[in-house]
Amino acid sequence: MKPVSRWLQAFGAALARNDIDAAARLFEADGYWRDLVAFTWNIKTCEGQAEIKAMLAATLSHVNPSSWAIHGSPVTIEGLTEGWFSFETAVGRGIGHLRLKGRKCWTLLTALQELKGYEEKSGPTREAGVEHGALVDRRSWLERRQEEAAALGTTRQPYCVIVGGGQGGIALAARLKRLNVPAIVVEKNARAGDSWRKRYRSLCLHDPVWYDHMPYLPFPEHWPVFSPKDRIGDWLEMYVNVMELDYWSSTECTAAKWDEKAEEWEVFLQRNNREITVRAKQLVLATGMSGFPNMPEIPGTESFKGTLVHSSRHDGGAAWSGRRCVVLGSNNSAHDIAADLWEQGASSVTMIQRSPTVVVRSELLMELAWGKLYSEAAVRAGITTELADLTVASVPFRLLPALQKPIYDEIRRRDAGLYEGLEKAGFLFHMGEDGSGLHSIYLRRGAGYYIDVGASQMVIDGRIKLKSGVEVDALKENSVLLSDGTELPADLVVCATGYGSMNQWAAQLISQQAADRVGKCWGLGSGTKYDPGPWAGELRNMWKPTQVPALWFHGGNLMQSRHYSLYLALQLKARMEGIPTPVYYLEPVHHLK
Amino acid sequence: MKPVSRWLQAFGAALARNDIDAAARLFEADGYWRDLVAFTWNIKTCEGQAEIKAMLAATLSHVNPSSWAIHGSPVTIEGLTEGWFSFETAVGRGIGHLRLKGRKCWTLLTALQELKGYEEKSGPTREAGVEHGALVDRRSWLERRQEEAAALGTTRQPYCVIVGGGQGGIALAARLKRLNVPAIVVEKNARAGDSWRKRYRSLCLHDPVWYDHMPYLPFPEHWPVFSPKDRIGDWLEMYVNVMELDYWSSTECTAAKWDEKAEEWEVFLQRNNREITVRAKQLVLATGMSGFPNMPEIPGTESFKGTLVHSSRHDGGAAWSGRRCVVLGSNNSAHDIAADLWEQGASSVTMIQRSPTVVVRSELLMELAWGKLYSEAAVRAGITTELADLTVASVPFRLLPALQKPIYDEIRRRDAGLYEGLEKAGFLFHMGEDGSGLHSIYLRRGAGYYIDVGASQMVIDGRIKLKSGVEVDALKENSVLLSDGTELPADLVVCATGYGSMNQWAAQLISQQAADRVGKCWGLGSGTKYDPGPWAGELRNMWKPTQVPALWFHGGNLMQSRHYSLYLALQLKARMEGIPTPVYYLEPVHHLK
Repeated sequence: MKPVSRWLQAFGAALARNDIDAAARLFEADGYWRDLVAFTWNIKTCEGQAEIKAMLAATLSHVNPSSWAIHGSPVTIEGLTEGWFSFETAVGRGIGHLRLKGRKCWTLLTALQELKGYEEKSGPTREAGVEHGALVDRRSWLERRQEEAAALGTTRQPYCVIVGGGQGGIALAARLKRLNVPAIVVEKNARAGDSWRKRYRSLCLHDPVWYDHMPYLPFPEHWPVFSPKDRIGDWLEMYVNVMELDYWSSTECTAAKWDEKAEEWEVFLQRNNREITVRAKQLVLATGMSGFPNMPEIPGTESFKGTLVHSSRHDGGAAWSGRRCVVLGSNNSAHDIAADLWEQGASSVTMIQRSPTVVVRSELLMELAWGKLYSEAAVRAGITTELADLTVASVPFRLLPALQKPIYDEIRRRDAGLYEGLEKAGFLFHMGEDGSGLHSIYLRRGAGYYIDVGASQMVIDGRIKLKSGVEVDALKENSVLLSDGTELPADLVVCATGYGSMNQWAAQLISQQAADRVGKCWGLGSGTKYDPGPWAGELRNMWKPTQVPALWFHGGNLMQSRHYSLYLALQLKARMEGIPTPVYYLEPVHHLK
Repeated sequence: MKPVSRWLQAFGAALARNDIDAAARLFEADGYWRDLVAFTWNIKTCEGQAEIKAMLAATLSHVNPSSWAIHGSPVTIEGLTEGWFSFETAVGRGIGHLRLKGRKCWTLLTALQELKGYEEKSGPTREAGVEHGALVDRRSWLERRQEEAAALGTTRQPYCVIVGGGQGGIALAARLKRLNVPAIVVEKNARAGDSWRKRYRSLCLHDPVWYDHMPYLPFPEHWPVFSPKDRIGDWLEMYVNVMELDYWSSTECTAAKWDEKAEEWEVFLQRNNREITVRAKQLVLATGMSGFPNMPEIPGTESFKGTLVHSSRHDGGAAWSGRRCVVLGSNNSAHDIAADLWEQGASSVTMIQRSPTVVVRSELLMELAWGKLYSEAAVRAGITTELADLTVASVPFRLLPALQKPIYDEIRRRDAGLYEGLEKAGFLFHMGEDGSGLHSIYLRRGAGYYIDVGASQMVIDGRIKLKSGVEVDALKENSVLLSDGTELPADLVVCATGYGSMNQWAAQLISQQAADRVGKCWGLGSGTKYDPGPWAGELRNMWKPTQVPALWFHGGNLMQSRHYSLYLALQLKARMEGIPTPVYYLEPVHHLK
């Protein structure tokens, strides 16, 4: 028997006879088991045999796993055997991935894919769309859809309210719609997609098309590699319509209150300037990683006669032709905005860099970091988007830095000239504290990097001026005063200073107490800058149960919005249907922001 | 060597040495060669060796075919071997299909797929979407798109104007956009998709989802089998946006005039009540098979106090609750509308049948007629939409009736009860004059059938009353007078009396002379009712050069709009790029309507 089959059989047998020790012994001493909602009703990585045993002891009896079956052909490279498999639990069906070192498991992924009895209707099970025969008072699709949309939130309360209608809220709502979970997406902008449209004019996605598909409806084959923001905006607006989402645009969530007695949320909305209260069993804050601007408090702001704006409110460079511009920050937005201001004819553009940035040229990132999973070559090799996402998910976060470091070492070598130039220009850069590069720093901080599409060269050759290793001390009437004493004349100051933790939304909408109960969102607890320990092993509070019942956080880039929306949707669906969802290991709160 | 390889090699060799006789001898005496634009710059079936020889004699020297290469694995069933292949011409690349009886070719399809040097950018050749580096005055995608849209038809004339923005015009415009052919679609309705939305409320597509995909952007997996009209409307509207079409809604084409000197069309438009003249080298009438209502002239119309309306203007049954309704006609629309009126509570619904109808239950049509090519099973068997379309295209129209008849014989057997019931009810039905069924009669007449989704049972049990074998003699104040002397009280008379030939649009927009030069559109010349001979072997004037230069007709169901839009687009693109397009065999005109 081949190693993966043998392992799966032994593992399945051990679990079937409830022999937790035997099951744990099938792992390496430092083996990993990452579970997406299948065993733990949580997103949880167990590290080492002890954690695996503890998890099984708490879950095995009710999960009742079975039907472990290999999928496709396992591959062995340099002593590591990898394979896919399927399995069932008492309530659902899952897909899994296995990495064997010799006979023992190094990494295991178990990911719930659907709930028994609540499978999505698709392909052979799709709806007829028409009911044949004679039906008195038949309603057309349009009539039914209009009645349903009008009823939801008025005569019929949704099961779930999703605050925030960017890609995260939209992807989740699409999954919930396919699972028949009544959900309303609340979006303050007038049109779906505006959260992209309203950003700076030169913005294009920094991730390539293969990484960015929405669930159910992939981009067509001619879609450009890097989507311009307005095109993504239009795509999302179209998607909301095609997926028949209950999307309340021009609607702002002003507050949400947990009704202890009814065990549901009262969600207070301002819809087209009318106040509406909606009640829902579950509340998802999908206000986004980039929803809560970090605006630095700069002394002298009130006396500044120029324009001071957060990058999220800055819309483009043409208006600043001939003017003196300062961009505070040195990550993606800062670079994009500085380049755009220069291209549109600003008389000077100065970037103020406070701390080192991970810089990687887009082409190399595509080739070396994403190419195997998200590229035309991957598509041709039969790696579907789902398979790519699950492959990413199969790598425990603990192992990621060591696996990523060689990629960034190689990038450093290949682009030695670029980095030399940046160094000469005084630009502070690194590949992360441990050299693990861009993806790591994104997971740790959600920021801290620039995917270079040309602005680094502009920094090198001085078209974008640079002041690095300084802070802004104050604003004066027509200038920015830096910590090294420099005074920069300025008509515009753009603060590309990033965003706060998503639990700030809980503070604003629910209460500071609720926000503190939830704690910091995002970050792994790596102990690196802005990502304090202890180690969590998963992104804190994302897509999983939080310390506040019935409150969830959803966000991230398009890939994460696509992938994790499935697991969040399954958690919500199970709760709606009354399927028991005992959560294993609710992460304690270590940080409030 | 296997038969298909052997044949292809011999065929390629004969063509390469210009040995037309040898090439023709590789066909059966009654063999067929159907060419879609690859050899003939026409859509043309050559029947028998003589026609094949004549075609080759006229085309071979400039077509210069080469690189014949088998694709996939040919299949032999009951002495018939089928296989796919690719080939090249001097200017393009094609795909082909071959049916061998023994060593000789029974049917050959050659279909141009792309023009060399003008390949669509897709997959590995897709655009970057962003230009890296520093570009002074860079335009964003949105700015470029807006400038382009504003310029087209004002400062920059389109190469092509497409009159009619239903699925036909939209599919063609999408292909032209991907081929960089500037085209404007002119649509009188306010929104793309309105041509569907405005039809009777109960309408759902009669063809299943697998048959109905638009090019480039297939319906998602959960799309219902039979799309409700409003959902198709929304899909088309979305599609126009996503495909970035230059779609002028609320615009009516009032006239078009050929400017001999400039060799281009002057197209007169009423856009949002403003008159605009646009000039274009090519004019496509995509006003649809169902664009020109046939409204019978009924004596006494002026005295009728009820509502008399063509089916295309009738919007639904709810308003007719408690009223007496008469539906003139017995095809799809007539049945759908009659059933809807009954379901919505009309006090009586009477269908007036003038001549026999092909009736087939939807489920059986799906299973027996389309199942092998357009179904979930086909998808699972790896039959892509393109492959299914080309398979359909590979069957010469002459052979179709004999191949179709057994399907309808089987349907007749399987649904004996239904047909017995219809007979008892006095409903006149048949399977076409030669028993070749629904698809045949659609190709011959574009009408004459009902895909039964329940109304036949309503006719059988009398919920829909029937008067068959009669004509309407006159309308009186509150009734319809039939040719058998019956007088039917009526508040509503819906004329589901079909549509005229598309060249009527040429008469209306250009001139009667132009319409007469084009002649009848649609129909094969089968010599059956409404499809007079002589035999044409292809649908008359559809998607191919007509006797009026630079005037084209595009239309048909979603499958035809998808499939033939490619060949029409390639013909237009070649002309725009100045690639020689010598048309072989321009069909003479035999009928004016």
